Amino acid sequence: MATIKDVAKEAGVSVATVSRVINKSPKASQSSIDSVSAAMKKLGYRPNAAARALVSQSTNTIGVVVSDVSDPFFGTLIKSVDQVAREAGKHILIGNGYHNADDERHALELLINSRCEAIILHAKGLSDEELINYAKEVKGLVIINRFIPQIESRCISLDNERGAYLATLHLIKSGHRNIACIASSQDIEDTHQRIKGYRTALEDHGILLSKNYIEAGAPSSDGGELAMTNLLSKSLDITAVVTYNDYMAAGAIQALENNAISVPKDISVIGFDDGLIARFVHPHLTTVRYPIAMMAERAARLALLLSRGEAIEDDPIVFTPTLVQRKSVFAR
Amino acid sequence: MATIKDVAKEAGVSVATVSRVINKSPKASQSSIDSVSAAMKKLGYRPNAAARALVSQSTNTIGVVVSDVSDPFFGTLIKSVDQVAREAGKHILIGNGYHNADDERHALELLINSRCEAIILHAKGLSDEELINYAKEVKGLVIINRFIPQIESRCISLDNERGAYLATLHLIKSGHRNIACIASSQDIEDTHQRIKGYRTALEDHGILLSKNYIEAGAPSSDGGELAMTNLLSKSLDITAVVTYNDYMAAGAIQALENNAISVPKDISVIGFDDGLIARFVHPHLTTVRYPIAMMAERAARLALLLSRGEAIEDDPIVFTPTLVQRKSVFAR
Repeated sequence: MATIKDVAKEAGVSVATVSRVINKSPKASQSSIDSVSAAMKKLGYRPNAAARALVSQSTNTIGVVVSDVSDPFFGTLIKSVDQVAREAGKHILIGNGYHNADDERHALELLINSRCEAIILHAKGLSDEELINYAKEVKGLVIINRFIPQIESRCISLDNERGAYLATLHLIKSGHRNIACIASSQDIEDTHQRIKGYRTALEDHGILLSKNYIEAGAPSSDGGELAMTNLLSKSLDITAVVTYNDYMAAGAIQALENNAISVPKDISVIGFDDGLIARFVHPHLTTVRYPIAMMAERAARLALLLSRGEAIEDDPIVFTPTLVQRKSVFAR
Repeated sequence: MATIKDVAKEAGVSVATVSRVINKSPKASQSSIDSVSAAMKKLGYRPNAAARALVSQSTNTIGVVVSDVSDPFFGTLIKSVDQVAREAGKHILIGNGYHNADDERHALELLINSRCEAIILHAKGLSDEELINYAKEVKGLVIINRFIPQIESRCISLDNERGAYLATLHLIKSGHRNIACIASSQDIEDTHQRIKGYRTALEDHGILLSKNYIEAGAPSSDGGELAMTNLLSKSLDITAVVTYNDYMAAGAIQALENNAISVPKDISVIGFDDGLIARFVHPHLTTVRYPIAMMAERAARLALLLSRGEAIEDDPIVFTPTLVQRKSVFAR
């Protein structure tokens, strides 16, 4: 493969001149640009991104850590960041954190060591303390889907409690009182906040239910199916269920179908996320919309501003979920 | 931020020694490793990935170009590559090609310029000729979901024609003869191969149908809904439909439901991919399995072998689709 020296020789200029052309220095003359470009083309020379990054101290790269790229929720998040990156002439580097501290730390360290200008981090395993330290070290770091008071201007989050409150309220207003909750078994703040929203809505309407009405499982359709099956076994006379996410809702509907219980006529089911599957589930899922695309766009713009040390816009950092009514809730 | 010079000063060694420690050179003594590591930790120095890459000429990075990361099909592909990368102690860099030549070329050039050791490329817009040239230039390049005879050992592909043949055959064996085809309107080889598989299966069984039985649309649920609606408008007395993918199948089922036509009792529907939504659609979708996770794993292992100039294993490069029977086909 041709080197920068070969290009300099072919173009009849110095290596420093070739470097200036490659790095788009304002000091490069038009005649140098022309001769160097012609030589690069002739020799098939590719400017090395690593070499350019060393000179410019910028890699033009935005890093993204998500839990798992194969979950469409994170696919949507990444796509939003990619759109902001493309507009700004940058590309993205992606790592999986798999919701645990070691993998999150490893993915983040790789992005930091790769000198990403800006990083959007979805972390549920790392402690607040560790994240605060990272935020101090990396000026273009923005944390998504998590709220840490000490670094609140660096966090883009969702009001999870309000989302679960809204879902439960919709069921109460539709005439339900025996409302079960299918929660996630993951020990992350989203889980606790959504259970709190469910409980608060019941309390605000004078509904007292035992903790038997709450069943936890893996946040997948299999987890939802098992949790719903467990709820049915407890003979609780349930007429409605709020769930942790759309996958668990789909699994719950499957368990009810297996038991010849009609949705929504016998039991109403409400999801969370309004993700890809919500419109494919039968009946079409009434759910809480998680505006992840908007949030990720906001996070990417904020991270780029922070990386350049520019003033932070006065835009929202805590986003509000909304209710999407489809066909899985029955008004009694 | 601390520099390599600061580390050398703190450790009481030369910059060259620090460099040897950072790059894990066998020439670094244990005492240098200890003193340099202690100095790096004390000063919070991070070895710059760009500098390391320049020295080692390796970035430990595998590049992946897909059409769109937010489509779970590509999420599954990326996850498989990531698993191979993690096992090998490497990380991945991802670009979107959006099924068009300019974006594919741009994403690929970025990965090449970033000195990815190996690249898995999903390209539907670039010409065979251009891909052959890239394969010559980049020794660790593997093309996925496409077959180019001149570089067949670098291509991991699916027998699309056989997939559509299988789907159509299953309907014929279930007693159907008036079988429509919902095709993709994208002008890519997958489209043409699947239509060919549908036609060949009909011919092999002496079934003659006009081209009115084929309707194309965008490869999404909206596209499938519109294509099914168009088919219904043509009064063709259809009893079954093969579709380009699961999304189009889901859209077709929606159109049938809107028109009070029962699936599968009145009209059977068969998908393609066996992707995330196949089990959420109602009725659960009978479909053709696209073994994308296996194929992506194979592509990643092949790309790493090629990048190291090692012998290529004699493993399959053209994968075979299989039929997954669920509940959307009715035996007449």
